[in-house]
Amino acid sequence: MSNGGGAPSSTTHLLDFLEEPIPGVGTYDDFHTIDWVREKCKDRERHRKINSKKKESAWEFTKSLYDAWSGWLVVTLTGLASGALAGLIDIAADWMNDLKEGVCLSALWFNHEQCCWTSNETTFAERDKCPQWKSWAELILGQAEGPGSYIMNYFMYIYWALSFAFLAVCLVKVFAPYACGSGIPEIKTILSGFIIRGYLGKWTLMIKTITLVLAVASGLSLGKEGPLVHVACCCGNIFSYLFPKYSKNEAKKREVRRRGTVVICAFQPSALSLLQVSYYFPLKTLWRSFFAALVAAFVLRSINPFGNSRLVLFYVEYHTPWYLFELIPFILLGVFGGLWGSTRFGKYPVLEVILVAAITAVVAFPNPYTRQNTSELIKELFTDCGPLETSQLCQYRSQMTGNDAGPGVYSAMWQLCLALIFKIIMTIFTFGLKVPSGLFIPSMAIGAIAGRIVGIAMEQLAYYHHDWFLFKEWCEVGADCITPGLYAMVGAAACLGGVTRMTVSLVVIVFELTGGLEYIVPLMAAVMTSKWVGDAFGREGIYESHIRLNGYPFLDAKEEFTHTTLAREVMRPRRSDPPLAVMTQDDMTVEELQATINETSYNGFPVIVSKESQRLVGFALRRDITIAIENARRKQEGILPNSRVYFTQHAPTLPADSPRPLKLRSILDMSPFTVTDHTPMEIVVDIFRKLGLRQCLVTHNGRLLGIITKKDILRHMAQMANQDPESIMFN
Amino acid sequence: MSNGGGAPSSTTHLLDFLEEPIPGVGTYDDFHTIDWVREKCKDRERHRKINSKKKESAWEFTKSLYDAWSGWLVVTLTGLASGALAGLIDIAADWMNDLKEGVCLSALWFNHEQCCWTSNETTFAERDKCPQWKSWAELILGQAEGPGSYIMNYFMYIYWALSFAFLAVCLVKVFAPYACGSGIPEIKTILSGFIIRGYLGKWTLMIKTITLVLAVASGLSLGKEGPLVHVACCCGNIFSYLFPKYSKNEAKKREVRRRGTVVICAFQPSALSLLQVSYYFPLKTLWRSFFAALVAAFVLRSINPFGNSRLVLFYVEYHTPWYLFELIPFILLGVFGGLWGSTRFGKYPVLEVILVAAITAVVAFPNPYTRQNTSELIKELFTDCGPLETSQLCQYRSQMTGNDAGPGVYSAMWQLCLALIFKIIMTIFTFGLKVPSGLFIPSMAIGAIAGRIVGIAMEQLAYYHHDWFLFKEWCEVGADCITPGLYAMVGAAACLGGVTRMTVSLVVIVFELTGGLEYIVPLMAAVMTSKWVGDAFGREGIYESHIRLNGYPFLDAKEEFTHTTLAREVMRPRRSDPPLAVMTQDDMTVEELQATINETSYNGFPVIVSKESQRLVGFALRRDITIAIENARRKQEGILPNSRVYFTQHAPTLPADSPRPLKLRSILDMSPFTVTDHTPMEIVVDIFRKLGLRQCLVTHNGRLLGIITKKDILRHMAQMANQDPESIMFN
Repeated sequence: MSNGGGAPSSTTHLLDFLEEPIPGVGTYDDFHTIDWVREKCKDRERHRKINSKKKESAWEFTKSLYDAWSGWLVVTLTGLASGALAGLIDIAADWMNDLKEGVCLSALWFNHEQCCWTSNETTFAERDKCPQWKSWAELILGQAEGPGSYIMNYFMYIYWALSFAFLAVCLVKVFAPYACGSGIPEIKTILSGFIIRGYLGKWTLMIKTITLVLAVASGLSLGKEGPLVHVACCCGNIFSYLFPKYSKNEAKKREVRRRGTVVICAFQPSALSLLQVSYYFPLKTLWRSFFAALVAAFVLRSINPFGNSRLVLFYVEYHTPWYLFELIPFILLGVFGGLWGSTRFGKYPVLEVILVAAITAVVAFPNPYTRQNTSELIKELFTDCGPLETSQLCQYRSQMTGNDAGPGVYSAMWQLCLALIFKIIMTIFTFGLKVPSGLFIPSMAIGAIAGRIVGIAMEQLAYYHHDWFLFKEWCEVGADCITPGLYAMVGAAACLGGVTRMTVSLVVIVFELTGGLEYIVPLMAAVMTSKWVGDAFGREGIYESHIRLNGYPFLDAKEEFTHTTLAREVMRPRRSDPPLAVMTQDDMTVEELQATINETSYNGFPVIVSKESQRLVGFALRRDITIAIENARRKQEGILPNSRVYFTQHAPTLPADSPRPLKLRSILDMSPFTVTDHTPMEIVVDIFRKLGLRQCLVTHNGRLLGIITKKDILRHMAQMANQDPESIMFN
Repeated sequence: MSNGGGAPSSTTHLLDFLEEPIPGVGTYDDFHTIDWVREKCKDRERHRKINSKKKESAWEFTKSLYDAWSGWLVVTLTGLASGALAGLIDIAADWMNDLKEGVCLSALWFNHEQCCWTSNETTFAERDKCPQWKSWAELILGQAEGPGSYIMNYFMYIYWALSFAFLAVCLVKVFAPYACGSGIPEIKTILSGFIIRGYLGKWTLMIKTITLVLAVASGLSLGKEGPLVHVACCCGNIFSYLFPKYSKNEAKKREVRRRGTVVICAFQPSALSLLQVSYYFPLKTLWRSFFAALVAAFVLRSINPFGNSRLVLFYVEYHTPWYLFELIPFILLGVFGGLWGSTRFGKYPVLEVILVAAITAVVAFPNPYTRQNTSELIKELFTDCGPLETSQLCQYRSQMTGNDAGPGVYSAMWQLCLALIFKIIMTIFTFGLKVPSGLFIPSMAIGAIAGRIVGIAMEQLAYYHHDWFLFKEWCEVGADCITPGLYAMVGAAACLGGVTRMTVSLVVIVFELTGGLEYIVPLMAAVMTSKWVGDAFGREGIYESHIRLNGYPFLDAKEEFTHTTLAREVMRPRRSDPPLAVMTQDDMTVEELQATINETSYNGFPVIVSKESQRLVGFALRRDITIAIENARRKQEGILPNSRVYFTQHAPTLPADSPRPLKLRSILDMSPFTVTDHTPMEIVVDIFRKLGLRQCLVTHNGRLLGIITKKDILRHMAQMANQDPESIMFN
């Protein structure tokens, strides 16, 4: 072998040429996967350069300080921006939502609640009737009561809802098609190393922010939490371009984006599930992300201090303990959550936004539980009835003991049942629409409604049949032994768990951290049941199935690979395939190289010592080879089609009349990952996940046998799960 | 080559022998590092077996259910047990601590606080004087006041302190030497895959629990939080033996132990730093751990509902905002924290426990701030002065405005200064002692005392010089513009950050989550300064330096490897070394094999095709080879010293008169990890960390060149950090 280990080069002019980076080498095409190891090395290289220069001058020292601080700066900026945006979206959506019902004459920019602050009515029932706030009927017809004004209000409600929906869908369609949906499946894929240009750009950010407000205000059954994650990621991405540390490195960029993701934990803890995305990030990023989340929460609270603060969305306190027997309805709620979680959403993307918005508006208006803001609805359902509660749900005959249902509770029950059916149907249809839409809040609302219905039913059962053996022991006559609000919370947790398929403990923690420690067991029972039922209908959550439908190459970190296949059964080429396309280190010409590239569509080629020995030298990327040859043709003289290409340290000895050889060692990856053909696939999958590889070479007793790429692994996993591997189309 | 890829074996009797596992193969020696990849594979193999048997019978199905549930069971049991133990330790330590001052005559098992509940005095000042509680002087001399009774109380205080300390040190010395210290460095190492038998056993647990109570009660300047982590880990370890899933797998055991660690987060969040230990754990473990923590917190609260609940240890609310100028004292506190963090503890292990305990008792008694329980002291220092506070720290001249210091504040200042000096000195000496001892609470106390002193000084400065340009703008005459409690909190955070070197964001989060969002900036400023100052004196925290001093092979996940060395510069053999000890796959005899093993002390040997080609086949562990040969000699007939050993699928063709060959393929690891000699060490370090490797082979163009072990990496890192690599002794 001519290339001994790596003796220092003696031909300095060659070395000089190599030092000069070839433009374009090391970048990626759209819809390709990045190489985490390479990107990390690049970053460390840059870091070392800055550190070694640091002592040269004051200017270099300042630059190094700036570099060290830029991580904190990006985090803080991302936190500030996404907190501010979330606050603005909150305020705007609230205001526009109230605009459907009326305006505040004293100050047009006030929403209903703000408008009525100055008035003295403080109770919930009287809240609606402050003089400054005019419903549309009052404004246009001049009268507040009567069937005419009801129809007028109804009409205006539908009119505004349709306008908002129309505007939202137009904006998305014309300016930023990437702004639709929740964005979480795509972000998961991007974070795992896939490149989708423009998905986190400034246009997407702007349009998503605006259309999110419009979509929420239009009353469609969707949540703003999922899209907020996308907004925060866009912020992180945009700020990362301000810092050379991040803008030039795909892996570092992902760190920032991930932080953006976590920022949203400040607003809604479900984004925690995104943390499970990948192993490639150091834990430092995780804590830094939490810091960004704190900043964002701080900003959000400063901007919108009077809004229904998301930070304590779930905060409730119940005063009665729960009883063992109640586990039965809790488990039933879990079954409901699991069934809800296995519903297939997004199958109806053809249905038009306007149609759905119109139906939503027409059906939602007459029912107070569907007309209401969804977050407020959840809050009301969670709340326990006390002597001060004036909601319809708490109109019991006797205010003191409060469990003999009055007419208010009965009518509320009917309305809740209708609202449940309506919400289920509309949420299924809404999720496929081309507007920004999340699924958390609607799912929780559905769970909370179902839970409250079950809770009230249980309560009445216990009241009228308190001598049953079941209730006898713990439920005294007239005592307050069942808390319908707790049932609502359990139902919400079950549905959230079912839809997102987060770890059971995660759901429980999310709910417990905001409440207390008393209700671990009911929550656990419901969430675990929901997970089991959901898994029985298909193991993947809504995002995983979305990722699979879109054919993104996403290797889930959660899923364990449990089959016994070995690397040699997964690697390419298969037995019937043509042999692996390889390059030899010093006996191919430029022409032969290009022929190999043109004949195949592979993204990279292993470089070997010789065809006979099949000993592996390194790995070269298709894109890099193409760029390097083109570059050499333009800049180096004497490169002809029959020029010899060599990847070794020193040029091979050539006949005197041969043209100038082309050295490509600089684009050769000298440390490709290899596994033996006997390596179990579970280990290979582990390596791919943890190190973020794009490909891995397979050897047997030191000979190159084949290659395994991320897509091969995904195809193999689909095959093992009895899915048609050909149905998986990669973009 | 005779061993083709891996054609199915045709000789069934050989296969049968191989299927039968050789006892002892796959276990580890004490003070060895486990192989994460192998352990994980073993677990998946077991899991598959159970799953495939599941459908055979109802009994097998039950077993599979039990297996699936055992994870939850272990978590819950660990949570319950460690919560209960923590509660017991709390109660016992409180009681024994009060025993130093007196006894409760009405019920001997009540501590001072519980004893005085029934009495009507509720204020802090009167609390001490309930009739049921008798000080030792009252009991023995019959009088409560006067110099005689003071001396009597003083004497009894010293007597009890010495007795407790003596008992503690004897118990540790005689029964469980592993019970001393905080245990966190060892747990970090064990979690990262090192084996220290008995460190987490039942004896250690018992003795640690008892001696922790004694050590805390003796008044030594130590905290119980670090040792509590050890206690919880022991619980996790002991429960893991009840479940075959965990008891037979070293990697799985570590998952449980890690959960035990996190349980302690429920009591003190600093244990979060242990989460950074390693990458090998799936995130599922993290969330499950938090669940265990919830269970433990729940139990703790149920057991000790009236104690100074640790859950809200840091919970404070301040009513005044902070001002920009105050950042200067905050940063000074940060400098103090950093200096404290770079103090070298544990250099004085020769000093005897009794001596330190005696000095502590003698000096601590006269000063109320050192006599007091440390947690209570921190609480008092954090608390803002309000009109209801009766503490000496709040004796201002005018109760209403409260910033003109009265005599109480002045004497408190002196006592605090003395307490600070005393705590600093005693903590430094105490940490090296052979009793269970933590560093969190003492560090926080030191920081809080320093912070409170600075805070009061600032307050008085602002009061007397309110016309200075600095104070003029924001500090009106008589207004309450400085919160000494906030200074105490900032100081405590700075010292905690300095000692543990947790990520800055982590410290801030820990403090913020329990408080509010208002004080991010002051905390950040102090903690970052503390980190910088600490790093300037040496980058490692107290635990890292302890790990290094003890020579444990611990590869820190936090530290980034930033040098440009390549794998070939780190691998063994070096140029001057003898060649790598290898085994060939089919032409060595049992005798030759044993000679190779006896001549070297390596833990494993690469197996190659032949000495000429140097192509790698696999890797065999020393322990496994020895056990397999011994086993074969005992059970297989015809195995002689000149028997041929082969690692291939089929036996090599041998002369007719040669003895029966020995097949060792079953102990051969067919998928050893390899890297090329050109791989940058940063990538190698990354692989070791993320995959938890023990060794990695180095190849060049398909030929085996050398080997890199975890210890080689640690040695190389020490060399790069300009430490003497030979000073690092591995146990």
